[in-house]
Amino acid sequence: MKKVLVTGSNGFIGKHVLDPLKSRGYEVYALYNNTSPVSEGLQLVKCDLMDSVNVSEMMQQIRPNYLLHLAWYTSHGKFWDAPENFQWVKASIQLLEEFAKVGGKRVLMAGSCAEYDWSKNVFSENDLSSMPQSFYGKSKNCLRILSEVFAEMNSISLAWGRVFFIHGPYEPPKKIVASVITNLLKGVPAPIQNGNLIRDYLHVTDMARALVHLFDSELKGVVNIASGEAVSLKILGETLEDLIGTNSLLQIGSAPPDPATPVIMAPDTYKLKEVLGWKPLYSLEEGLLQSVNWWQEQLNESPI
Amino acid sequence: MKKVLVTGSNGFIGKHVLDPLKSRGYEVYALYNNTSPVSEGLQLVKCDLMDSVNVSEMMQQIRPNYLLHLAWYTSHGKFWDAPENFQWVKASIQLLEEFAKVGGKRVLMAGSCAEYDWSKNVFSENDLSSMPQSFYGKSKNCLRILSEVFAEMNSISLAWGRVFFIHGPYEPPKKIVASVITNLLKGVPAPIQNGNLIRDYLHVTDMARALVHLFDSELKGVVNIASGEAVSLKILGETLEDLIGTNSLLQIGSAPPDPATPVIMAPDTYKLKEVLGWKPLYSLEEGLLQSVNWWQEQLNESPI
Repeated sequence: MKKVLVTGSNGFIGKHVLDPLKSRGYEVYALYNNTSPVSEGLQLVKCDLMDSVNVSEMMQQIRPNYLLHLAWYTSHGKFWDAPENFQWVKASIQLLEEFAKVGGKRVLMAGSCAEYDWSKNVFSENDLSSMPQSFYGKSKNCLRILSEVFAEMNSISLAWGRVFFIHGPYEPPKKIVASVITNLLKGVPAPIQNGNLIRDYLHVTDMARALVHLFDSELKGVVNIASGEAVSLKILGETLEDLIGTNSLLQIGSAPPDPATPVIMAPDTYKLKEVLGWKPLYSLEEGLLQSVNWWQEQLNESPI
Repeated sequence: MKKVLVTGSNGFIGKHVLDPLKSRGYEVYALYNNTSPVSEGLQLVKCDLMDSVNVSEMMQQIRPNYLLHLAWYTSHGKFWDAPENFQWVKASIQLLEEFAKVGGKRVLMAGSCAEYDWSKNVFSENDLSSMPQSFYGKSKNCLRILSEVFAEMNSISLAWGRVFFIHGPYEPPKKIVASVITNLLKGVPAPIQNGNLIRDYLHVTDMARALVHLFDSELKGVVNIASGEAVSLKILGETLEDLIGTNSLLQIGSAPPDPATPVIMAPDTYKLKEVLGWKPLYSLEEGLLQSVNWWQEQLNESPI
């Protein structure tokens, strides 16, 4: 029996991994702290990952052989340099230790594009020696370095999915895709500070499916999770205007980016697409349409 | 009042930092888990650093403004790649978090020469981007990367002392200096596998004094802790023969070192010696004589 423990199961990505896991035959134990995810056919488990006694007891009770660790401190705008990153490293170490104690076999941890050294402009899994800039990036990267060794010592197969950019339901409204969509839907000007930036976006359900695809494989190590088809924010904005049917509401600037922000972030997706054979369900346009429809519903329900 | 909490206070180095701290005016709280250190004029505190509740309560009770963190898993021959390194990262993160909660101001953590990438043969604090080979080195280095950021966020001044090679009382008998001394004292052949290796050795009391010297300064960041006068193991062995008065007992080989073992490990000690103005109390010869005398006493007390 494939018994999987999912942390952060009610998070931005987490709520979308549950169905793909179930359809691949996993018995799902969905961990949450405050609000439980809404999904049928799974076990809901309330657990505070900061409470070491709680974690230890929970793990002994469930005894999962699979672990999908998505939980982290992700408060928009704050998480990059929040002290909470430090305690999430600690909590993640304990989680993996407890997983090893019950004989766990396969784990996927969510990493981030923030683990790369953005000044080098190389986003390939083959370049693992870089030193990321943010505390978030350093924390994830150090956790990865240590977890890979610990997992190997305990005969645990560990995959590390480096998540790139995402849009979709419950995206923080100030983030670029959400803010452009909501402004266009409201018929007000939609600023894009720098239209020249090249970014790789996935709809959150495709991101979740890709993570589950990697998790359900036997591949170990770091894998970039992204579409492989980065576009400029200008094209992204114009695609949204086309989908929504507005005209001339985009205000596309060309402000020079922060020196720490790369103009081009085009991840190498050879592993995900060629080695693992993963394909997104949605094209960029189809994914954006999903997001537009979701935001449309939100605006209809509670006019802002 | 300078109230310092010392972890690992009964360890190889730890037992020698207590007197230097007291003579610099610190009120010393010496943490131990199993056996307490023998020293007067200090507070002994039993605490299991793996027990998060214990650590939290201890820190709230003592409320130190200084922290000297030496404790780690150091079982000879095993520590390089022991899973315990993982839990010591976790325990050290918690210790620093609890120290921040009580308003701690200055911390020194013991790092290691194992944090350098030994394949690069550069042992300078200016080269901090390297990726160490062992789990011990990775664990210490990752802890350092994260602790430096967390400390900065919490207005804690953090120094990181990278400890090189040490000899002296209670050195594990199989380590090179201890084994050569005891063999020579017993009048049996003393093998040195590779006499060409260049290493930097300090007597443990000088190592402890150097750490306290750094701790008691305002310097932040990584500092190599070593004599700055590396010698070949051949010269080291010959010095010991001279001191002990034996002849022709050394068996000096020239086996090619393990590819992962650098022939020359000569740390840059500019920071310790020039910036901080530290000087060892003992020359190499004087330090070795101290060790010879200590081992002589051990052999007299319980003839092996």
